[in-house]
Amino acid sequence: MAEPIPIIGGTGALGAGLALRWARAGAPVVIGSRSAERAQEAAEKVRAAVPGAQVEGLENPEAAARGPVVFMTVPFRAQSENLNNLRGALSPGQLLVDCTVPLAAAVSGKATRSLGVWQGSAAQQAQEMVPDGVTVVAALHTVSAPVLGDLSRDLDEDVPICGERKADKARVAELVELIPGLRAVNAGALEMARIVEQLTPLLISVNVRYKTHAGVRFTGLPETDPWS
Amino acid sequence: MAEPIPIIGGTGALGAGLALRWARAGAPVVIGSRSAERAQEAAEKVRAAVPGAQVEGLENPEAAARGPVVFMTVPFRAQSENLNNLRGALSPGQLLVDCTVPLAAAVSGKATRSLGVWQGSAAQQAQEMVPDGVTVVAALHTVSAPVLGDLSRDLDEDVPICGERKADKARVAELVELIPGLRAVNAGALEMARIVEQLTPLLISVNVRYKTHAGVRFTGLPETDPWS
Repeated sequence: MAEPIPIIGGTGALGAGLALRWARAGAPVVIGSRSAERAQEAAEKVRAAVPGAQVEGLENPEAAARGPVVFMTVPFRAQSENLNNLRGALSPGQLLVDCTVPLAAAVSGKATRSLGVWQGSAAQQAQEMVPDGVTVVAALHTVSAPVLGDLSRDLDEDVPICGERKADKARVAELVELIPGLRAVNAGALEMARIVEQLTPLLISVNVRYKTHAGVRFTGLPETDPWS
Repeated sequence: MAEPIPIIGGTGALGAGLALRWARAGAPVVIGSRSAERAQEAAEKVRAAVPGAQVEGLENPEAAARGPVVFMTVPFRAQSENLNNLRGALSPGQLLVDCTVPLAAAVSGKATRSLGVWQGSAAQQAQEMVPDGVTVVAALHTVSAPVLGDLSRDLDEDVPICGERKADKARVAELVELIPGLRAVNAGALEMARIVEQLTPLLISVNVRYKTHAGVRFTGLPETDPWS
C-alpha cells in the first residue's frame, strides 16, 4: 500500500488540482484545510471526479501527520502562519515540499513581480521555520493550477526540484512523476528556489501575452535516470 | 540586402557562436572587439567554417555603428565599460540587445548564483547607460555558447525576449529566428529581465547535474504569431 500524500492548503486551486491528478493515478491523498468541513467538501469533489479515489479531508495539522512527504500549496501570504500551525504536527524525518511563490500579488502588487524574501526564497523561509529534523524541498511552482484541475487536459512539462539531498529530491520526484506528463528535474540545492520560484511570475507574464497556461521544459537533458 | 548584425564582444564564446550561426543562415555579421586584430581573426574563423560568409571584424564602436540592431555579448564584468565606450557610437533609433547575465562568477562567486544589480537587471542597467533614443531589449541569455559554436549540433529551444515595445521585440525576434531551432518568446517588459537573466544560473545548476548544455522551452504556447 502506498502511503498517503498530505496536501496542506489542499482546498486551493493548486492543491485541489494535485489531489485530483494523484487520485486519478491511484495514489491515496489527504486534503488539509483550516476547516475540516471544507477539507471534506474538497475530498468529496475529488471522489465525484475520480470514482474510487482514496481521498480524505482533514484539518491541516492532522493531515500533515498522515504521510512522510507533505506538500504545502498555500498562498505565500499564508505560508508563515501555516508553518507556525504545523510546528506540533510535523515530525523528524518528514519532508515538507514547499510549492509557494512569493508573488508581489501577496501584498496587492503585480503577479508578474515578486517579493524579496529575507531568507532568499519562500522555500528557505520554510526551512527556517519547520521543526528540527524536517527537511524542505521546493517543487511544483510552474505547473498551472487550472490545467491540473481540468482532467481533460494533458500535461507535458517539467517540474524543477530544489533541495539539499538528492535522495530527498528523488522521493519527491517519484510522487511528482505519478502524474502523467510531468517530468521531475533536479534543479540543484535548496537555494536555487530563489530562481525557480521566479519562474512563476515569468510564466504569468508569458500567459498574459499568449493567453495560455504555459509551463517550462528543459531541453538537452539526457534520458538517463538523474536520481540514481 | 539584409542589414549587418553587429556583435559587441563578438570574439567571446556567445558572440562567436551567434556570428557562426547567423553567417550560416546567410546574414551579414560584424564582429566587434576591443582589438581590431582579434575581431578580424574571429571573422576569419567564421569564413573558414562557413564558406562565403559575409562577416567582417572591427573595433567595437565601429562595429556598433554598422547595423540598426546591435547585440552585446560581453561578460557582465565588462558591460558597463563597454557601454561607456559605445556612448559616441550608438545613435537614436538603434536597438541594443543586451545578452549579459550578472553571474556571481563575475566577482569570483559561483556560476549558479547571481549578483543583485541596482537597477534590477543587467538589461535595466544597460538601458540607464545607453544614449537617449537608444532602446534596450534583453535576449539570448539561455542559449548555450558551446552548442551555438558547434555547427554540427542542432538547436531546439526558446529565447525569451524582454522589452518595453512589442515592435522592438519583434525586430529582435526576427533576427533570433534566422537561426534554425530557436523560437523567440515574448517574455514581457524589460523589467522581466530580472527573472530571465536568472535562467542562466539555473541552467548552469542543471548542467552540472546532468552533464549537458540545457536550454529552456515554454510549453503550451499557441501556434499563432505572437508579434502580429
